[in-house]
Amino acid sequence: MLKDLTITEFLQQTASSEPLPGGGCTAALNAALAASLTEMVANLTIGRREFEAVEDEMINIAETAATLRKKLQNEIDNDAHAYREVLAAFKLPKNTEEEKNRRSDAIQQAFKTAATVPLGVARDALKTMDLASRAIAKGNQNAVTDGAVGVLVSRAAVLAAIYNVKVNLSAIKDPDFVEALAREVEALEGQAIEKEKQILEPLKI
Amino acid sequence: MLKDLTITEFLQQTASSEPLPGGGCTAALNAALAASLTEMVANLTIGRREFEAVEDEMINIAETAATLRKKLQNEIDNDAHAYREVLAAFKLPKNTEEEKNRRSDAIQQAFKTAATVPLGVARDALKTMDLASRAIAKGNQNAVTDGAVGVLVSRAAVLAAIYNVKVNLSAIKDPDFVEALAREVEALEGQAIEKEKQILEPLKI
Repeated sequence: MLKDLTITEFLQQTASSEPLPGGGCTAALNAALAASLTEMVANLTIGRREFEAVEDEMINIAETAATLRKKLQNEIDNDAHAYREVLAAFKLPKNTEEEKNRRSDAIQQAFKTAATVPLGVARDALKTMDLASRAIAKGNQNAVTDGAVGVLVSRAAVLAAIYNVKVNLSAIKDPDFVEALAREVEALEGQAIEKEKQILEPLKI
Repeated sequence: MLKDLTITEFLQQTASSEPLPGGGCTAALNAALAASLTEMVANLTIGRREFEAVEDEMINIAETAATLRKKLQNEIDNDAHAYREVLAAFKLPKNTEEEKNRRSDAIQQAFKTAATVPLGVARDALKTMDLASRAIAKGNQNAVTDGAVGVLVSRAAVLAAIYNVKVNLSAIKDPDFVEALAREVEALEGQAIEKEKQILEPLKI
């Protein structure tokens, strides 16, 4: 599993001429990093007398961020798996008309999954941005830059995941599926860019 | 070493209430990811007949990116080490006037190092953006989204590293040092934001 590689190994394998891990895995990794940094801000706030008033909210943020972190670290491998399924579908036999149809259906199904996985990453990265915003606003101010870095990398995760949705959409023939996902990623893209500004500009770091 | 942790462990340790690894380590990791993705685009171009005309340039990009990747993966630990040195300086004895002066000097020196490490990361992440831009423009177009993700995460790395420069600058008393670094990070920040737009907008992914 990619999530069990060391940082050094993951970087080296990304750099290689093998297509995996690629940009989609980096997107999921960054969404997971954003969740981790948000969790850290909450964890550095919980149990401190001066933040007693926000204790319950910080426990909730830490728990939600931990759930997102664990989900998103698995998306690194899910993204790679979806890409491998596309390659596998292309390798199906195409000797008879029936085989050709079956292969074509499998390819389309694989591309749909390969578009859906990064769409989920983009959605979760955007959710993490909102969590980070709350942790920054009310949490331990010594960890503000960590939370702010969480926002920066969640923006990168949303936009990177969206590239991977779009590149797969370009191979999908079902117009309703394409239109629905295209509309959603356009909305997510605008929100990620806007939210980053709204959260980070007032910080004046 | 942080770079020898698995992805899962790194995320978990980031999330914990320990201050390390924090946002500075995420910045260095993202700069290293950007270098890796750039290297990947070049490696997916090298040796292909249709890209013979850019073979030498791609070999050069792959080598430069590999050097940056290896340097930047070490910066993850260098950033953590610099932070630990700040904590260690604060723990020095302060019973006599001489001890107080020595402690104060050590704290100032530690903060200067803690500002200089992320400044180096920001510079290298910006260099990686230029490399990624060349790889995207002339390299294997099947890997364009990987290169584009490299640009997104290098922007995040530059801006995240700059937060970590600034937070350390706020504790430094040497006005010439502070002014020089503040001026440089302002320039780097503007360049990262501008370059990302210039590289990604024309791609129309």
